[in-house]
Amino acid sequence: MASHAENAVDKAIGALNERDDARARQVIELDSTLDQSEIELDEMCINLLALKAPIASDLRLITMAMRITQNLERVGDEATKIAKRALDLNREEPLKPLVDLPRMASLATGMLRASLDAFVRGDTALARASILRDAEVDALNKQLHRELVSYMVEDPKTITRCLNLMVISKSLERIADHATNISEEIIYLYEGREVRHLPKTQDSLGAIPAPKSNS
Amino acid sequence: MASHAENAVDKAIGALNERDDARARQVIELDSTLDQSEIELDEMCINLLALKAPIASDLRLITMAMRITQNLERVGDEATKIAKRALDLNREEPLKPLVDLPRMASLATGMLRASLDAFVRGDTALARASILRDAEVDALNKQLHRELVSYMVEDPKTITRCLNLMVISKSLERIADHATNISEEIIYLYEGREVRHLPKTQDSLGAIPAPKSNS
Repeated sequence: MASHAENAVDKAIGALNERDDARARQVIELDSTLDQSEIELDEMCINLLALKAPIASDLRLITMAMRITQNLERVGDEATKIAKRALDLNREEPLKPLVDLPRMASLATGMLRASLDAFVRGDTALARASILRDAEVDALNKQLHRELVSYMVEDPKTITRCLNLMVISKSLERIADHATNISEEIIYLYEGREVRHLPKTQDSLGAIPAPKSNS
Repeated sequence: MASHAENAVDKAIGALNERDDARARQVIELDSTLDQSEIELDEMCINLLALKAPIASDLRLITMAMRITQNLERVGDEATKIAKRALDLNREEPLKPLVDLPRMASLATGMLRASLDAFVRGDTALARASILRDAEVDALNKQLHRELVSYMVEDPKTITRCLNLMVISKSLERIADHATNISEEIIYLYEGREVRHLPKTQDSLGAIPAPKSNS
């Protein structure tokens, strides 16, 4: 499910970058696969809870898995949104060379990959590092937003394209948020530390436990 | 938690409608209450799962409760977003009389209230009726979006205000989506019918079970 989600985002941005409608349509068609996976994984988790009545740590693992699937399904929804806007944008003259969006996309998918690696390896340091990159994506989104507003003000003919690009930028920011949600769940699972709703800074995330060091 | 969430949305729209900055700031301050409730309710649910090892229907109820709290927390996030945009908008001349946004807000909070009543009473007919109203909110959002684009094209000085109003409209649409998520969970809980990811039409939601009738 994770690789499907990541793949969908890559493809959607590729469709935009290379003005490739066929690829955009693929993303839209494949979204139902992620929807179906979410339903199946949920069912599997509930069955595990019912049949095995698992204790503490397994219980947390299962309830967390349910949340991760929900986040991945939403990443797929955002990829679909990007693909649909790409189809709109491919019908018009390019507004400007795309630089920020591919950069945001690679940051966001990088965060997603890191959060899932962190899950598989139980590596909370990796989860923390991923959360800390969220600020970068937010800053890029804000910067691009400002830039697009100035385009709109200068030339109202660009408004529709700018709005489409804003939606894509916001979707990428949201994909990074989903990656952050997953990383927060992982820190909670492995360390019992609740970091949801805290500012995304090194301080509030707390030190990475380093059992073999005195520092 | 539900009444907090609903209240936050009402207040945020009130702050916009009556240009009342103090009310907007209240919404922003109160968001941490919902964040905290989500964490506490999650903890409670996990403890219930751990201590009671509940069977089938209770198990579904508890996992569903965890999802409902997540949706309510996000309604709070959207209310905060609306309140922040209201603060921006209150600093400028009103663009036009607000008609669609209060209408959307009342639809969205109505859907939210209905979904939670449906939960408390186990009333899946109410949950279905709430889901079917989602299309109305979507249509209002699209209509307002188009209208705001034409304002922007006609007068670039309105762009910032229009973008703020678009974000608020999108937030209300998303609140209706959260209400829909909750209603879908309720139908699944009480009828075992999976309606997530289906089109929101009477047909795909299926008939409301009517045990005492032949029709």
